[in-house]
Amino acid sequence: MVLPRPLFQHTISFRVRYSETDQMGTFYNSRALEWFECGRTELLRALGLPYAELEARGVFLPLVEAHIEYLGRARYDDLLQMTTAVTFSGRARVRLDELILHVGTGHAVVRGWTVHAFTTATGKAIRPPSWFLEILAKPR
Amino acid sequence: MVLPRPLFQHTISFRVRYSETDQMGTFYNSRALEWFECGRTELLRALGLPYAELEARGVFLPLVEAHIEYLGRARYDDLLQMTTAVTFSGRARVRLDELILHVGTGHAVVRGWTVHAFTTATGKAIRPPSWFLEILAKPR
Amino acid sequence: MVLPRPLFQHTISFRVRYSETDQMGTFYNSRALEWFECGRTELLRALGLPYAELEARGVFLPLVEAHIEYLGRARYDDLLQMTTAVTFSGRARVRLDELILHVGTGHAVVRGWTVHAFTTATGKAIRPPSWFLEILAKPR
Amino acid sequence: MVLPRPLFQHTISFRVRYSETDQMGTFYNSRALEWFECGRTELLRALGLPYAELEARGVFLPLVEAHIEYLGRARYDDLLQMTTAVTFSGRARVRLDELILHVGTGHAVVRGWTVHAFTTATGKAIRPPSWFLEILAKPR
Repeated sequence: MVLPRPLFQHTISFRVRYSETDQMGTFYNSRALEWFECGRTELLRALGLPYAELEARGVFLPLVEAHIEYLGRARYDDLLQMTTAVTFSGRARVRLDELILHVGTGHAVVRGWTVHAFTTATGKAIRPPSWFLEILAKPR
Repeated sequence: MVLPRPLFQHTISFRVRYSETDQMGTFYNSRALEWFECGRTELLRALGLPYAELEARGVFLPLVEAHIEYLGRARYDDLLQMTTAVTFSGRARVRLDELILHVGTGHAVVRGWTVHAFTTATGKAIRPPSWFLEILAKPR
Repeated sequence: MVLPRPLFQHTISFRVRYSETDQMGTFYNSRALEWFECGRTELLRALGLPYAELEARGVFLPLVEAHIEYLGRARYDDLLQMTTAVTFSGRARVRLDELILHVGTGHAVVRGWTVHAFTTATGKAIRPPSWFLEILAKPR
Repeated sequence: MVLPRPLFQHTISFRVRYSETDQMGTFYNSRALEWFECGRTELLRALGLPYAELEARGVFLPLVEAHIEYLGRARYDDLLQMTTAVTFSGRARVRLDELILHVGTGHAVVRGWTVHAFTTATGKAIRPPSWFLEILAKPR
């Protein structure tokens, strides 16, 4: 599976928590969106743009659209590897693509993407700040 | 906004829990998938096919794909109304469309859909049982 | 089981959500605290002091201590009944006692209590506002 | 703050997830129990008794009692350090004490404990298996 050519990508690994399982014995479906959030957090930190700092500067990135495909099982304590890749989506949004693999078997577990607007704390849409664009677009 | 013509649809209402908010002051994005689950549960009960009974009969409906659009804000304790509509998606899957409205303002909050396979408890794909199809497709 | 003689008590009922189960097949333990929150919300509404309004007036009730006993099982979609009772705990705190019963069997599922301080939005301790005390303590 | 002299103790660190915050701007109270679970998981792994393996051998450790004190704030992305210590609680239960510190400030954030029974998959109480006791009690 191939992610679109991103401006930047970042990989983390983590284990499925017990609280993330359900009675089907695998992770509950909404956890994928919580994991995507962890992927964004670490990608932004790796870029030098920690999200907590963005919010402190008055820039919020609320989710406006999400798509998730459930491709395989993962159970409590299984080790997962997630790659997050960032691209622009139009002029005022960012898109993050995510791919989660099961480290033990190599199988894909979840693939998906989220699109985020730039807003103020009260939800008013704003243009991406220039300092954000510069960091994101700089050649690597 | 119009949902596709469903085999059956069902509406419930509920309030945003404090535990469902995040520091942005609205509901955290993954809660939408948890609410969709509540909508499915009540639609199946209204159909006379409680999901707990389906699982007791060995029929599971794991999520294979989900799509969510975040259209408006909802805060702690806001009253929301969610309509869930079921259709077939190919011969071996069901699709549920969801629309969540803010009762106070009438604005749309979330729109989305999920696609579900039919499987055994261990995740093996099966055909939809005939008793399920009969109940779902019977004229109303 | 007997709750302490409260200033006021209130009972609600709800069903276990699928997202609240874990691979043990019952509700995951932290959900009890989320349910207690729903009990507090509805008790305060019944008192005429909706918590959203308290926060809008600048009064927050953060949890400072919680105790939970897990007494019985409850599974997905089981109907539960929760009674919440409020008392004072010293001069500047409120205590809420909770008892959750399984409607189908009558068995106790969870018993517990939480203690809450009165604070400003930034977490500074304050005395309970007089209008709060008057409503809470008025004879019924 | 001092934890009781344990049979074994283990320390991990982690960051507050965005999904774990609430509209008060700190972590939502029930997350403490989810973090305690992570602490138990890593303590058992460090002991050579991974919990997933315990369950695979038919030994479950459901929570029967929990106590939590909320001592300080922690915000999204704050780095926390949690020490988990295990002792026996009577002859057929284990108790885990937890202390969570804020790495940046050194302040205590949460202190608490959980008590766990030994049961089969269906919830029947059992004695702690001898191989479990031997590993837990061996001199270090």
